[in-house]
Amino acid sequence: MTPPQILISEVGPRDGLQSVQATMPTADKLRWIDALVAAGLREIEVGSFVPARLLPQMADVAEVVRHALTYPGITVMALAPNLRGAEAALAAGVHKVTLPVSASAAHSLANVRKTREAMVEEVRAVARLRDAQAPGSMLVEVGLSTAFGCSLQGEVPEDDVIWLAGLCAEAGADEVGLSDTSGMANPAQVRRLFTRLRAELGAKAGAAHMHNTRGLGLANCLAAYDVGVRTFDASLGGLGGCPYAPGASGNVVTEDLVFMFEAMGITTGVDLKRLMAARAPLQAGLPGEPVYGMTPEAGLPKGWVQR
Amino acid sequence: MTPPQILISEVGPRDGLQSVQATMPTADKLRWIDALVAAGLREIEVGSFVPARLLPQMADVAEVVRHALTYPGITVMALAPNLRGAEAALAAGVHKVTLPVSASAAHSLANVRKTREAMVEEVRAVARLRDAQAPGSMLVEVGLSTAFGCSLQGEVPEDDVIWLAGLCAEAGADEVGLSDTSGMANPAQVRRLFTRLRAELGAKAGAAHMHNTRGLGLANCLAAYDVGVRTFDASLGGLGGCPYAPGASGNVVTEDLVFMFEAMGITTGVDLKRLMAARAPLQAGLPGEPVYGMTPEAGLPKGWVQR
Repeated sequence: MTPPQILISEVGPRDGLQSVQATMPTADKLRWIDALVAAGLREIEVGSFVPARLLPQMADVAEVVRHALTYPGITVMALAPNLRGAEAALAAGVHKVTLPVSASAAHSLANVRKTREAMVEEVRAVARLRDAQAPGSMLVEVGLSTAFGCSLQGEVPEDDVIWLAGLCAEAGADEVGLSDTSGMANPAQVRRLFTRLRAELGAKAGAAHMHNTRGLGLANCLAAYDVGVRTFDASLGGLGGCPYAPGASGNVVTEDLVFMFEAMGITTGVDLKRLMAARAPLQAGLPGEPVYGMTPEAGLPKGWVQR
Repeated sequence: MTPPQILISEVGPRDGLQSVQATMPTADKLRWIDALVAAGLREIEVGSFVPARLLPQMADVAEVVRHALTYPGITVMALAPNLRGAEAALAAGVHKVTLPVSASAAHSLANVRKTREAMVEEVRAVARLRDAQAPGSMLVEVGLSTAFGCSLQGEVPEDDVIWLAGLCAEAGADEVGLSDTSGMANPAQVRRLFTRLRAELGAKAGAAHMHNTRGLGLANCLAAYDVGVRTFDASLGGLGGCPYAPGASGNVVTEDLVFMFEAMGITTGVDLKRLMAARAPLQAGLPGEPVYGMTPEAGLPKGWVQR
């Protein structure tokens, strides 16, 4: 295969699994991650470092991380909502930790029970911890949630988003991405905000995390690509969303996103047939849970040859 | 409302209704079209002039056209597969007739039992008929189906598409649009082909008719908009597709398409709330038929104000 031109960051084992009621057994998680790696995914968010009493789906995160770290060339990511979680993530050896900072003040309180400014201080503490304990190791990523609108407060001023992104970078984040937590983004806004983000942060401007809540997920990814974004979050089978943003649903489906880019001739490094095959272990581990995806349903077009 | 910057051409009453098994009663069709007009749609494809024994769903097309013609400012469209159908459309007084010409040789035979070249002659005969009987009346549109790939023959060379588009324009078509009949288009291809089409045909370059078969419908409409396309076909509730292209499904959902453009600040002239309300008469006339749409399911975002 041609060297990949973009990075698809698979968030299903974290964002997907923490959004469903059922808990996937550890052995199934490992089989699913094996299949994702076999499909060519190079960055996988494998879990959350949160107390098991809050998210029992993530109780085995350290074990899952340990397994994922055995693959060469894979960036193993995990979410941590605060310094304590990031400490555990660092101890587990993850390559990249992602902290959720909300652009919306209302969503920040609902999601992490902290103000936005307090979360920036959390980012600073995590970066300091990493620098003190293991400099040059674990990257610190911020996913700026509700960057395109909030189902609690409605519109989120674009200046707020850029201001917070700047604060996070200044506090030590290595990458700051923008998340459409409530599925309110549109392509014009995506182009504007990522253009400003890149102007503000340069190489620290991070991933586009789009939702398909109102059907615009792929159009928004295309818009982000058009203005230079090269990392895209997606979830196999569209599993997941954010349970604390009412009405939010629908991560972009990895299968459809990979199909779009590959059909355009933009290489992802992901083998579409193997990616579709990775739905089987997901479904085996979460019996009865609905999975989505238009490309898996329609099949690959006649004559399809992946570059 | 701000004057519309793009035209959404609603194809549900033709493309949608001829694709489902059930026949919508005439009175329900009229109520549905009333609701579409009330929502602000200005171009509606209301039926097909085909023998009732082939498509009983369209047996009342002349009556439906008569009703639609009572609205001021609405472009009433109908499909005609051949000269005979176009004669009936002209007699009924439609403003615009659309002829299906396939870019794929295999699809042409399957869909209209004629070669592509024979269909170009049909276009010529229709334009001549109009010029002889009522010059300056009924516009002749060609929708070039399978322009982005064919589920029977696979890839369709882009040169074939442009060659055929040129032949149709030369034969007298007033507009030539491109249709993604099998849902195989991608945004890069959409940009290439519409750019070539506009270079070849100038003002005769017509609508983008995209399908959502593999989830790329809106991304492809965005791509078409980016290169200057200003007319987009869509179907309320995503009703329809082409029954003669195996595996084809999923017209772009009008509600989602209007949401995307309006959210971007591109005016459509369509009121989204009234558009959603137009789903009720559609569902009343086709009980049990599935309708689609992410925006209707999720609802409009908090704080949404249509310009």
